[in-house]
Amino acid sequence: MSELASEPSAQGVTQPQGFRASGVVAGIRNGEGPDLALVVNDGPQHAAAGVFTRNKVKAAPVLWSEQVLTTGRLRAVVLNAGNANACTGPEGFQTAHATAEKAAELLGCGAVEVAVCSTGLIGSQLPRDDVLEGVAAAHAALGADAAAGLAAATAVMTTDTVAKQVGHADPAGWTIGGFTKGAGMIAPSMATTLTVVTTDAVVDAPVLDEALRAAVRVSFDRLDIDGCMSTNDTVLLLASGASGVVPDTAAFRAVLTDLCKDMARQMQADAEGVTKRIAVRVAGAATEDDAVTIARTVARDSLVKTALFGSDPNWGRIAAAVGYSDAAVDPDRIDVTINGVLLCRGGVAAGDRAAVDLKGADIVVEVVLGLGDGEAEILTTDLSHGYVEENSAYSS
Amino acid sequence: MSELASEPSAQGVTQPQGFRASGVVAGIRNGEGPDLALVVNDGPQHAAAGVFTRNKVKAAPVLWSEQVLTTGRLRAVVLNAGNANACTGPEGFQTAHATAEKAAELLGCGAVEVAVCSTGLIGSQLPRDDVLEGVAAAHAALGADAAAGLAAATAVMTTDTVAKQVGHADPAGWTIGGFTKGAGMIAPSMATTLTVVTTDAVVDAPVLDEALRAAVRVSFDRLDIDGCMSTNDTVLLLASGASGVVPDTAAFRAVLTDLCKDMARQMQADAEGVTKRIAVRVAGAATEDDAVTIARTVARDSLVKTALFGSDPNWGRIAAAVGYSDAAVDPDRIDVTINGVLLCRGGVAAGDRAAVDLKGADIVVEVVLGLGDGEAEILTTDLSHGYVEENSAYSS
Repeated sequence: MSELASEPSAQGVTQPQGFRASGVVAGIRNGEGPDLALVVNDGPQHAAAGVFTRNKVKAAPVLWSEQVLTTGRLRAVVLNAGNANACTGPEGFQTAHATAEKAAELLGCGAVEVAVCSTGLIGSQLPRDDVLEGVAAAHAALGADAAAGLAAATAVMTTDTVAKQVGHADPAGWTIGGFTKGAGMIAPSMATTLTVVTTDAVVDAPVLDEALRAAVRVSFDRLDIDGCMSTNDTVLLLASGASGVVPDTAAFRAVLTDLCKDMARQMQADAEGVTKRIAVRVAGAATEDDAVTIARTVARDSLVKTALFGSDPNWGRIAAAVGYSDAAVDPDRIDVTINGVLLCRGGVAAGDRAAVDLKGADIVVEVVLGLGDGEAEILTTDLSHGYVEENSAYSS
Repeated sequence: MSELASEPSAQGVTQPQGFRASGVVAGIRNGEGPDLALVVNDGPQHAAAGVFTRNKVKAAPVLWSEQVLTTGRLRAVVLNAGNANACTGPEGFQTAHATAEKAAELLGCGAVEVAVCSTGLIGSQLPRDDVLEGVAAAHAALGADAAAGLAAATAVMTTDTVAKQVGHADPAGWTIGGFTKGAGMIAPSMATTLTVVTTDAVVDAPVLDEALRAAVRVSFDRLDIDGCMSTNDTVLLLASGASGVVPDTAAFRAVLTDLCKDMARQMQADAEGVTKRIAVRVAGAATEDDAVTIARTVARDSLVKTALFGSDPNWGRIAAAVGYSDAAVDPDRIDVTINGVLLCRGGVAAGDRAAVDLKGADIVVEVVLGLGDGEAEILTTDLSHGYVEENSAYSS
């Protein structure tokens, strides 16, 4: 369903009925473009679910929003770029709280109905006055059209080079849309993932929660750019019920999952320094968990990633990474295929390296283990000079 | 004891009595210098111990040598660079066996008394005839002087830029020496670690084994350049007993450990693309294992490594890495110090980034957790353009 991203109708969070959004310049990143977004659910329902980083060092907005989401209810989300509000202690938490209070005051609801998300540099205090003025400006700028959704999607960009939106109008009469930023969920670069998905379907919070966790598990959780996990990752799902349509639960889950996979692919394509989009597919593992572990180990291996940056079909490094992964492996049964060319059969060289075409941007690495039915795919990128350049000059 | 490396008397494996060595051109890496080394223990004793890669994909010489070492006895070691003899199936194993047979025939011993080590590209057959002729040439070239030890140390170099030797003459009357190559033990780059340590002390195989495992655990095992584990890593310890001196066991272990740490530091300083030598020290962890886990997670984090390459004291990335490590962490008790400047106290920004001097080649990252007495140090390097360059062009 990646073709969704190119649908002209994909207008993001304002595509479903019942939602308004905006993006404004709050001055958090020193005037370098818009840096604060607001998404409002005008109802009639306000069901919501959230998935957050598993990092034990959680940013203040994550601590705030996790609490808020225990109610299964959200009226609005405030997001900012330029500062992560992480490692900022009680003062940072108070800033997150004050941000929610300000939005709640403007919307006539309680602060516990407002989630807050931040992305940017860790360890400096978020300028509270700028943020509160930004919330007021964002409230004044709220709109329900495509431009408003795009403005919100644009305001949360950090090292992203394009805004990332999805949208889907279901034949059953309900609509879903969303935006994302960053480079991954459980293992992003510091280009934290912030994602907001909205729908006008009539769905209860428990169903949203279950659907969102299931979708994230096979989408954002299977994108691994560099193995680093952010302090701020947040994926939120808000339902307004404005369509009046109760969707088939399975159909809703399937569409949500497809949209999340689409957003993960958009992040992969826009990852820091990427010159190759790499899919690592593992089959024949003892279990699905083992398949994920092995695919993730290969996807994170610096030597595999540099080899593919150099268009070198170095399957030996792939076999070595499979071997040191924390999963069941029989070294005499490993098959490795790169872009359709079988290079290693039963753990031994096979085929012709020269037959592998790595000139294009897309690389598919397939590992077959011959141990069971477990399979999984992890998306990653190469390790390039661009990655080193971008990440060695981020905070200075 | 790193000053050992610069002692003029550090002549490596031929420093102890009872050992001869050589290094010759066998043609394995197409005439680019010496590529085959031989180390012979002339006795009177032949006790030995070995530690090998934990990768489940083990090279043929590792499979061979692990079997050989179960006897606790070695007459000789044959080592080659230019080809890892990994993922080479039964043919590769037969080549390793034939190599040992050839050396055994020349030395008048059994093949099971000869270990074999290889390093280089994975997945192509080692040219057996070249290796066997190389063994004959190496046998003819054996010498007991410093030049012979250096010749062996030089023949196993791959991406190493300098030969790496250690040596120590103990006041108690016994001597120990060794060489190493590569960039780490359990987590090296494909610049596999091959290490041979020799001693003329009178030590039984079980004592050697225990001493070697203890030494490796706090030296090679605590060097982590890029998290990638080789198929070929091997550390061997051979004792000739030629000094006639039975060393104090604790003193022997201490010296062996110091020498292994010295070799690990030499590897760190010569790692691929290194511009910074980084020591990550964790204290106050719940356990030593937790301290190792946390230090290793920080040492492997691509964002930490690129920041330090850029001389950016980005402690937020360090705190984030601590947070996603698989160990007990209280986010409100994390202190982070870089090169003596406390930048994060109790999980919150402190001190002045600008006060951190990162211009030099050495960086010490200290993380204190306030949870217990566990502490550990992991040595690593930065992630530089040089690393990307070297590893994107290795096999082509």
